[in-house]
Amino acid sequence: MDTAHVSSQKKPHVVIIGGGFAGLHCARGLADADVKITLADQHNYYLFQPLLYQVATAALSPADIAAPIRNILRKQQNVSVILARVISIDVKNKLVKFQHGDLAYDYLVLATGATHSYFGRDTWEQLAPGLKTVDDALEIRRRVLLAYEAAEWEADNQARQAELTFVVVGGGPTGVEMSGALQEIAAKTIPKDFRHIDTTTARIILVEAADRLLMALPKELGEQALRDLQKMGVQVRLNCRVTEMREGEVQIGDEILPAKNVIWAAGVRGSKLAETLNVELDRQGRVLVEDDLSVPGHAEIMVIGDLSHVSNSKTGKPVPGVAPAAIQMGRYVAASICSHLAGKKQPAFEYHDKGTMATIGRNRAVAAIAGRHFSGFFAWLIWSLVHIFPLIGFRSKLSVIFAWVLSYFSLNKSARLITGQSTTQITKAMSSGNRETTMEKDPAEKNIHA
Amino acid sequence: MDTAHVSSQKKPHVVIIGGGFAGLHCARGLADADVKITLADQHNYYLFQPLLYQVATAALSPADIAAPIRNILRKQQNVSVILARVISIDVKNKLVKFQHGDLAYDYLVLATGATHSYFGRDTWEQLAPGLKTVDDALEIRRRVLLAYEAAEWEADNQARQAELTFVVVGGGPTGVEMSGALQEIAAKTIPKDFRHIDTTTARIILVEAADRLLMALPKELGEQALRDLQKMGVQVRLNCRVTEMREGEVQIGDEILPAKNVIWAAGVRGSKLAETLNVELDRQGRVLVEDDLSVPGHAEIMVIGDLSHVSNSKTGKPVPGVAPAAIQMGRYVAASICSHLAGKKQPAFEYHDKGTMATIGRNRAVAAIAGRHFSGFFAWLIWSLVHIFPLIGFRSKLSVIFAWVLSYFSLNKSARLITGQSTTQITKAMSSGNRETTMEKDPAEKNIHA
Repeated sequence: MDTAHVSSQKKPHVVIIGGGFAGLHCARGLADADVKITLADQHNYYLFQPLLYQVATAALSPADIAAPIRNILRKQQNVSVILARVISIDVKNKLVKFQHGDLAYDYLVLATGATHSYFGRDTWEQLAPGLKTVDDALEIRRRVLLAYEAAEWEADNQARQAELTFVVVGGGPTGVEMSGALQEIAAKTIPKDFRHIDTTTARIILVEAADRLLMALPKELGEQALRDLQKMGVQVRLNCRVTEMREGEVQIGDEILPAKNVIWAAGVRGSKLAETLNVELDRQGRVLVEDDLSVPGHAEIMVIGDLSHVSNSKTGKPVPGVAPAAIQMGRYVAASICSHLAGKKQPAFEYHDKGTMATIGRNRAVAAIAGRHFSGFFAWLIWSLVHIFPLIGFRSKLSVIFAWVLSYFSLNKSARLITGQSTTQITKAMSSGNRETTMEKDPAEKNIHA
Repeated sequence: MDTAHVSSQKKPHVVIIGGGFAGLHCARGLADADVKITLADQHNYYLFQPLLYQVATAALSPADIAAPIRNILRKQQNVSVILARVISIDVKNKLVKFQHGDLAYDYLVLATGATHSYFGRDTWEQLAPGLKTVDDALEIRRRVLLAYEAAEWEADNQARQAELTFVVVGGGPTGVEMSGALQEIAAKTIPKDFRHIDTTTARIILVEAADRLLMALPKELGEQALRDLQKMGVQVRLNCRVTEMREGEVQIGDEILPAKNVIWAAGVRGSKLAETLNVELDRQGRVLVEDDLSVPGHAEIMVIGDLSHVSNSKTGKPVPGVAPAAIQMGRYVAASICSHLAGKKQPAFEYHDKGTMATIGRNRAVAAIAGRHFSGFFAWLIWSLVHIFPLIGFRSKLSVIFAWVLSYFSLNKSARLITGQSTTQITKAMSSGNRETTMEKDPAEKNIHA
């Protein structure tokens, strides 16, 4: 890196964009460095994303898995946190452009992660929400809960079946976890809550384009996950693609499936901000970085986390877009900046794979750790421990353990609240499917009190 | 009541509208009755409203104080729950009209409660949200947290002061609790989270039109609350009225106060549904009911909870709009329906005042119980116990105790998440005050890194 631009009068200014795993661990890694840090994020919270599907399926509250970034960094005096969305990067003048003004940097760390990719079918976004932010999770929770409410009211059999059909697109960890949790809700959590529908007849369909689930994990574990999901009642469709989507129906290959609820867990692509760097991106919109995670030609800009495309320096294998990789990159870049300020250079970034895992329902999981494979209850225990310990904040740790223990024994999902929508919208959502039919006769005779 | 309309073939149909304290306790009171019950609510959750201000001030999560109505009633087989908004009541034909269709009733229990009243100034609603639903609380939480974010970014002193001015309108329990909690956030919870503003300079102003706080409690306790709030730093303005409100400023009497955050805790009025009954309402839009809580001329319709205007049959004093009154009315009407079905008649409704209380900050409260007055820490302990025990669900009880104990010792408010707003809107909200000023120069030099 070039230090010519760093004034000797002022402390070097490190601007980190994104307060996820990568950005936050980078900021923490610079705690003792003689730099001035600004961390900007468009949300005020750090989110423990691996548990986000539990918010979407009403097992946890947002505050259980998210914490204010400011609060996490409150004791680190060299960091300023700002809540703001970055518009673009002016690489030439070393400026980060916000709507309000510009911010000059000496080092820039880009950690804005990935967002959903609908493979160019942008209209699908409204029909099939993805799962990246707390608001995404609350929207999915709202839709799932409203589907059962609408089904309870619905008089027409076919329309009711469409309300009770949940299609999850994508068989990676999020898709596997979501479909397992949705199946559990239908079969175990809510059957007694309804009087007019049998929620155990709800269909959870997991669609995956490849010939197996969990491509990032060893084949054997993908097969185990398939067996577990099928045993629970999830309909898994491998080698299938969603070819079209309209309000109320999904086309899988040539088959048109009436389904009111679709959840997108398929493609991801790098955040759009990367495009403003004017450097080479891969097909998923991620930045092709050097082996020290810097942008080619700009040693002062580093890209970390899901937005970074890098291969392991030793094995040559691409570093996966998972939390441990993001954390390691954040720490590496922090050390890298410290080395640079001391006039030294670090060896290339190397990813240490500590294991990959996914959970399937209430007490099953699959895990690949240090070359060994685990499944079933033991894998689920490992999964639970691994996911609770990194939670920032004592309250979060205890609160999640507490919620899990209770939900494990009671089969209850305590956060089943429909929020964020005015009543008019609720009524509209509920009536959109079959309004004329139900208006024809007194629903009291047709369905509500049938 | 007249039984002529109750068919001997079918079970009598009791329709309860509203799943709050009153409606839910009425439904539960009918658990063993040989009736068919439908409970309709526009939300899917029962809400423990006395703790709602703790969600608005980020101490608790919505799921801690709310639970799905269906789930609460899942074991009571004679109840159907529907999520739907009622449009009107057709008293003549004994029909409840929903958007989807009609529902015939034999007994109708109206428990739709009260909503905010802006005294005819409906444009104020957008500027000064009230606190009745979970969504209201999340909106207030969002606005309060965003105000500090905007202040941290704001370069102009006056605009920053306006961001840090919180006006609470109305000195009843909600106003007293909100202003105490807001003061605690500013003075104790978040000072270390910010680098550029001193959050202890935030002004919390409580405006009350009367000459004292907590009109529903004995005078002595209103005075104690005033002293406690003032000691904490809340500016209490008695004998003051909000005369005008515009974006960014509030007029109190003749004084114009730059304030970006206003919270409405002043007037309430009965839910609009009461108007469709075509019976006499009081000035607050509540139904003037008979001493058995039925509507004059319609013994089959009963109005309970905050929507009911009734005086105590013995003392002649009006029954206050508080949770214990709503619960007692719900139970009374359930018993009343049972008596009626058995061909008997109950004595008039009588309200048993078990005490009134309000909390002021982290460890102070005022309480009037059985003619005795309490204040300080002991009153707060009573307040806590009284408010935790009625919480429905084991998880809620433990979770709230747990959150309180932690926040008591850590001064932390764990649910400080800004959700429910797209980033564009956040940026807009933040930039609306002083966008041009900050755009003139590099904010890095002006404020962010001043």
